[in-house]
Amino acid sequence: MAGIPSFKDDEHYLPELAEFVGIPSISRDSHRPYMLAAAEWLAGQLAFANGRLVETDGNPVVTGEWLGAPGAPTVLVYGHYDVQPTGSPEEWHTPPFELTVTDGRAYGRGATDDKGPILVVLKTAQAYIEQFGRLPLNVKFLFEGEEEIGSPNLPAFLRQHAEQFSADLVISADGAQWRPTEPSLSVASKGLVSLDIEVSGATRDLHSGRYGGTVQNPVHALAELLAGLHTPDGLVAVPGFYDGIEDLTPQQRADIAAVAWDDDAYAAELGVPALHGEPGYSTLERLWMRPTLEINGITGGGPYTVIPHLAGAHVTCRLVPGQRPEDVLDAIRAHLAAVVTPGVRVAVTAEKGGAAAYTIDPGHPAIASARAALTMVYPGEEVIFARIGGTLPATVLFEEVLDAKTLFFSFSIADEMLHAPNEFMRIRRLGEGMRAWSELWRLLGEQAPGAMSASTWAAGAAK
Amino acid sequence: MAGIPSFKDDEHYLPELAEFVGIPSISRDSHRPYMLAAAEWLAGQLAFANGRLVETDGNPVVTGEWLGAPGAPTVLVYGHYDVQPTGSPEEWHTPPFELTVTDGRAYGRGATDDKGPILVVLKTAQAYIEQFGRLPLNVKFLFEGEEEIGSPNLPAFLRQHAEQFSADLVISADGAQWRPTEPSLSVASKGLVSLDIEVSGATRDLHSGRYGGTVQNPVHALAELLAGLHTPDGLVAVPGFYDGIEDLTPQQRADIAAVAWDDDAYAAELGVPALHGEPGYSTLERLWMRPTLEINGITGGGPYTVIPHLAGAHVTCRLVPGQRPEDVLDAIRAHLAAVVTPGVRVAVTAEKGGAAAYTIDPGHPAIASARAALTMVYPGEEVIFARIGGTLPATVLFEEVLDAKTLFFSFSIADEMLHAPNEFMRIRRLGEGMRAWSELWRLLGEQAPGAMSASTWAAGAAK
Repeated sequence: MAGIPSFKDDEHYLPELAEFVGIPSISRDSHRPYMLAAAEWLAGQLAFANGRLVETDGNPVVTGEWLGAPGAPTVLVYGHYDVQPTGSPEEWHTPPFELTVTDGRAYGRGATDDKGPILVVLKTAQAYIEQFGRLPLNVKFLFEGEEEIGSPNLPAFLRQHAEQFSADLVISADGAQWRPTEPSLSVASKGLVSLDIEVSGATRDLHSGRYGGTVQNPVHALAELLAGLHTPDGLVAVPGFYDGIEDLTPQQRADIAAVAWDDDAYAAELGVPALHGEPGYSTLERLWMRPTLEINGITGGGPYTVIPHLAGAHVTCRLVPGQRPEDVLDAIRAHLAAVVTPGVRVAVTAEKGGAAAYTIDPGHPAIASARAALTMVYPGEEVIFARIGGTLPATVLFEEVLDAKTLFFSFSIADEMLHAPNEFMRIRRLGEGMRAWSELWRLLGEQAPGAMSASTWAAGAAK
Repeated sequence: MAGIPSFKDDEHYLPELAEFVGIPSISRDSHRPYMLAAAEWLAGQLAFANGRLVETDGNPVVTGEWLGAPGAPTVLVYGHYDVQPTGSPEEWHTPPFELTVTDGRAYGRGATDDKGPILVVLKTAQAYIEQFGRLPLNVKFLFEGEEEIGSPNLPAFLRQHAEQFSADLVISADGAQWRPTEPSLSVASKGLVSLDIEVSGATRDLHSGRYGGTVQNPVHALAELLAGLHTPDGLVAVPGFYDGIEDLTPQQRADIAAVAWDDDAYAAELGVPALHGEPGYSTLERLWMRPTLEINGITGGGPYTVIPHLAGAHVTCRLVPGQRPEDVLDAIRAHLAAVVTPGVRVAVTAEKGGAAAYTIDPGHPAIASARAALTMVYPGEEVIFARIGGTLPATVLFEEVLDAKTLFFSFSIADEMLHAPNEFMRIRRLGEGMRAWSELWRLLGEQAPGAMSASTWAAGAAK
């Protein structure tokens, strides 16, 4: 088998993407019939690989395998069929679960995170099977339904089925490329800790006039706690938060400084009056190399004259190498308990699914193959080594349980409104992605099995 | 005519209270059919006084008059048929708009604020008419439908109809007595300023990983702004907020110190771990004599991994004499504009219906009559001069437009969950209220007309 399959026009694949996006598989809602419908759609697409659902303690995993390439490496393709909630429906210009195509873009919740990028893999594999009768290497599939809620059940599931999913390398269809102006390979992703803070005061809401001035208002107390999580100039003010992190090396700073970047254009694109963040680092350094603590939501009372008795916030931290999720959580708990004002109570609830940060060495052989595949699709363009500010909890798990590094090879782009209203995928990325995946598989198929495993590579790199 | 009418058992009046409470006349929602239904119910009860609706630029006013007592004073009875929103439905133990009677209490939204206290007046007047064929003085009625949203249309309406509503004294069926342990007369109410703060950042919600660390999070900025509205120990930190307020006199401090009060019992009743407020003042001094700034509600983002692009808060200030609502609003605007962090925008929107604080001199003749009426109903109990932490914007208006002081004579009690879930009225207060109103009217009917007007009294007090 030489060369890669041929593909039809991008538009040919849109009806199937519309089917997939049309299923509102929001894992945070976990409406079981929708989750099952999305999983079964996916299993149907994997017919060539004995596609099937396997139950977990949460939403089922969709799996399958094609192992007809003895002597060639085995890769595990990872992705997720669940999607984020839509957020405020009135901010969507089109119905979130009706794929709407306009100006070269396909709009819909999950279009680019992660249903479109999964379709790229499915169609790549199907084209190989149809045109060559085989794949150029052994491929296993693992599509989970809980990525957007932090993959709470994946660790136990993968440990129970470690042998079944053993592979030389994981290739993730999740993990967006960072911008549309040049091809990039992601060599790191941030970790995640999620928690809820609840401040409570009286046993009931109180009339703001008839009780005002006598008790602490839980919203005031929460505002103080939240304001105290950062210094005014943007440093996270939780003692211990930065423990364990190595400072950037001069080489890292130089590499990042070499990437074309325009703060003003970035601010203008986002519509913010100024950029903001931890002092002492450039925007790209903060985005790629420094941890964050973001308050994602606040709630309490309403537009009426009460002293609310409850006020709450949802917080997520994005972690970098050296930070342990459990230590970060403990540091936040200790800080809040130490500074909370008298007159109220504060409770912190950790969300399941914390994850450490992940990195892959730019010298890993999978990176070389991926770079070559991208160069084939984007001739003459420099492939940048980028980092993912988002979190892909499965990566750390795959390394620990399967001894396999994860190569991010998504054809999503980070500007495609992931997690926001009006999510979309650029249609041209379907065909570009299929050709790139085809070439990547072809190149990886020529590698010696075993050379790519995490421990083998680490041992080689240490020499 | 000597003496006062007789009344039936309290239970006799509950079906009509249930009718009135059953109409969800929430002025903040302003669902016109409900507002009209409540107004029309009220007009029907005022048949003896030619009860009728009069349109305003908002919800209609219900009015009527019985003027068959030449030579006697004229009083204007004030109340409101609108109610607060229910707040969170799951916090109600009974349906908010089905009057539910248990353990001597009638539960329902508006039961005590202000529909029950209005029923007391209606039944008092009807009993006089039925049993004596007349009232002991001239009575005009003015029930508005926008009190809970700050009476935005009452000023213009009253100025247009000043002659029609002219009176020697206003008696308010609104303005709760402050606690159930003794009868009290309120000699002051606080003013009100309401505003919304909105902080905006990017043009859309941003993925907290893919953009985290590069922009200011509007929720962080809002938390800083809100935390900065108070010092940690409870002083309002807005420069100029306290301008114009006279400090408490030694006599005021002594009077307040003489009122039976137990901080621990109060904290236990509210369920708070400690009381809290402006340093240097006792709890009752803060409640009665000092202004407050409360954040009533906060909103922004949600429990998902985004940097929200909007975050907002609703704020109300309760004012004391010397503070001008417009100056307080300006001070807050200036403060927020001065301290807002770069990277976001802040907008302040004032709600219509600001009001200054109100006072009536404890020596005013209406106070003497009211005290005597309460003593008749509660023999042997001391009548306390209390203050209302809440706001009755109409009082200042009545003084300005009608030259009439307002006597608070509600039979609501401040612990009856006003503005909160599970609002109720003590049933015994229906009969107590009717007898007290009957005696009050009888005593006021013996006064010389004109002696009670605001300017006459002020001139007399100045001598």
